[in-house]
Amino acid sequence: MSNNTYSSFTEISTLGEFGLIDTLAKENITRQPSTIKSIGDDAAVIKNEQSLTVVSTDMLVEGIHFDLMYTPLKHLGYKAVVVNLSDIYAMNAEPKQITVSIAISSKYSVEALRELYDGIYTACKMYNVDLVGGDTTSSPRGMVISITALGEVSQEAVVYRNGAKKGDIICVTGDLGAAYLGLQILEREKQIYLEHPGIQPELEKSQYLIERQLKPEAQRGAIAYFQKSNLIPTAMIDVSDGLASEILHICKQSGVGAFIEEGKVPMHPDTEMTAIEFKLDPITCALHGGEDYELLFTIDEKDLDKIRFMPEVFIIGEITEKEDGIKLHTTGGNIHDIIAQGWNHFKS
Amino acid sequence: MSNNTYSSFTEISTLGEFGLIDTLAKENITRQPSTIKSIGDDAAVIKNEQSLTVVSTDMLVEGIHFDLMYTPLKHLGYKAVVVNLSDIYAMNAEPKQITVSIAISSKYSVEALRELYDGIYTACKMYNVDLVGGDTTSSPRGMVISITALGEVSQEAVVYRNGAKKGDIICVTGDLGAAYLGLQILEREKQIYLEHPGIQPELEKSQYLIERQLKPEAQRGAIAYFQKSNLIPTAMIDVSDGLASEILHICKQSGVGAFIEEGKVPMHPDTEMTAIEFKLDPITCALHGGEDYELLFTIDEKDLDKIRFMPEVFIIGEITEKEDGIKLHTTGGNIHDIIAQGWNHFKS
Repeated sequence: MSNNTYSSFTEISTLGEFGLIDTLAKENITRQPSTIKSIGDDAAVIKNEQSLTVVSTDMLVEGIHFDLMYTPLKHLGYKAVVVNLSDIYAMNAEPKQITVSIAISSKYSVEALRELYDGIYTACKMYNVDLVGGDTTSSPRGMVISITALGEVSQEAVVYRNGAKKGDIICVTGDLGAAYLGLQILEREKQIYLEHPGIQPELEKSQYLIERQLKPEAQRGAIAYFQKSNLIPTAMIDVSDGLASEILHICKQSGVGAFIEEGKVPMHPDTEMTAIEFKLDPITCALHGGEDYELLFTIDEKDLDKIRFMPEVFIIGEITEKEDGIKLHTTGGNIHDIIAQGWNHFKS
Repeated sequence: MSNNTYSSFTEISTLGEFGLIDTLAKENITRQPSTIKSIGDDAAVIKNEQSLTVVSTDMLVEGIHFDLMYTPLKHLGYKAVVVNLSDIYAMNAEPKQITVSIAISSKYSVEALRELYDGIYTACKMYNVDLVGGDTTSSPRGMVISITALGEVSQEAVVYRNGAKKGDIICVTGDLGAAYLGLQILEREKQIYLEHPGIQPELEKSQYLIERQLKPEAQRGAIAYFQKSNLIPTAMIDVSDGLASEILHICKQSGVGAFIEEGKVPMHPDTEMTAIEFKLDPITCALHGGEDYELLFTIDEKDLDKIRFMPEVFIIGEITEKEDGIKLHTTGGNIHDIIAQGWNHFKS
């Protein structure tokens, strides 16, 4: 289904490990003045421009986090970077550098690896970050990508998950649930394709949802807006596991409750339509779907004016006292507890 | 052969991902004042105490970099940390924080994972570094460990690979070749064990070599000595791929040649004895064996006095002009070119 086939196939072993690194490093451009030394020494060297460095790391495993049957390698490289940058933005920090380690089996060609790095470099360019180090090694089977992102933020501006307080307003930067439904569509079309290899998958009408799944973006615009507006959220987290899980993290760490209005949770029309097609409640997709990479944040009531001109922001609820619990006010007028229902990759 | 079996077997799925992280994080202690926020938010937060941050990352893949048949998980965790810290020391920097990402299949129990983390935490304690983040995820099969280490160094003290110049003295902090022979012994005993499971492997008399392979140490003492003695090497690299490969890196990046005396290259008596047992030339093990994690460094002639009281240091040669090439003066009186002969994991 995906286009991970290339006109030439160069075996990685023909280049050797150093040759491979040289080949891939050739296209690496340094953009950050703080990157003093990039690839090529025992470690990268970064000049500290702000008082705080933030560090985040993620590992993506073939067969668990991605399926190369419907994931173009370029998109995979791009997404692997973006999900890490999303964590840096969630600290209200500016991402600056990444390291990338990849384990791949010999079934992949140099061309395939180049495609993956093409996506990685495209993300670096888009988000103005430098790839400063990493490791490319072989694996007996399957592909593993591990990325660590570094960012900078001043001591005054750093935002944790634990600062939300009663009366704060709960906001999210964009629509939720789409990435999850994009995945459902890709999985469905994969099954159809496996059973009837002749049939071309119908993906055009689901373009928005599929793009949200395969090529998510991190919310750099929100962080830029906060800085411009002199606004520091009281708490922030990125929506990787679903709204429910993230609001629970903020409430647990801040020692507060929350009241979310179902009707205010932003959802794309395609999300609502496709949820129904899959016999799912749209709000369930928003609450438990995950991989949206929007930012969920809380602000002090007095800062409400400051988000008035924020290009993409949705007010979805309010922080309450811990004793009030973490509640969803449904459009039907009921009040439910919001509970975690994250993914458990270890369950077979 | 190794003792990776436990009296109880708790399936990881019984804890779930968050439960698992909680279980492992409980034993995590923060020691560095610069660690402002460790595990538990979107990213770790580090206060910059020196002007430069150094970053290094490594990925270890089961079946490529380690064999669990003879590698106790605790040793594996310890070594995975140490090899990263070694890269930080090689920049003349002080390691401060690490992130650890692990992918494991469901065949591993919580007890096994605890054992691995026990080794990781032991290394953190030994080297006074904080584990500040990571990812624990499942893999369809096999184990992958990816570690990123952060360190700090002043702009004046940072040492690259590219500063060696003609007349500089080439030093190494300890004996070479032992880790490689340790691996040969473990591989031999594994084959014997597989063919005759009743026979207990004979490992006692090779204890030194096996320990160098399974539980290497990073050369923190050398960096502390440099600081105390106001000595800044002109170039430095850690010996992970073998002396030949490392001296070639320094020479290539510094634009110089080198002259190494075979008779001065430190080797443990067990290394020499066992090399002969395996019908190998001992110097070949030192040149191409790797995984010694000693530091190879060059100093200005005028600093020779400053290493006189260094507890562990061996002068093995001198930096020459580029045109003179990179040469080994053998004990037999011949002069050979030193060539790279690193590992190529991609070769099948």
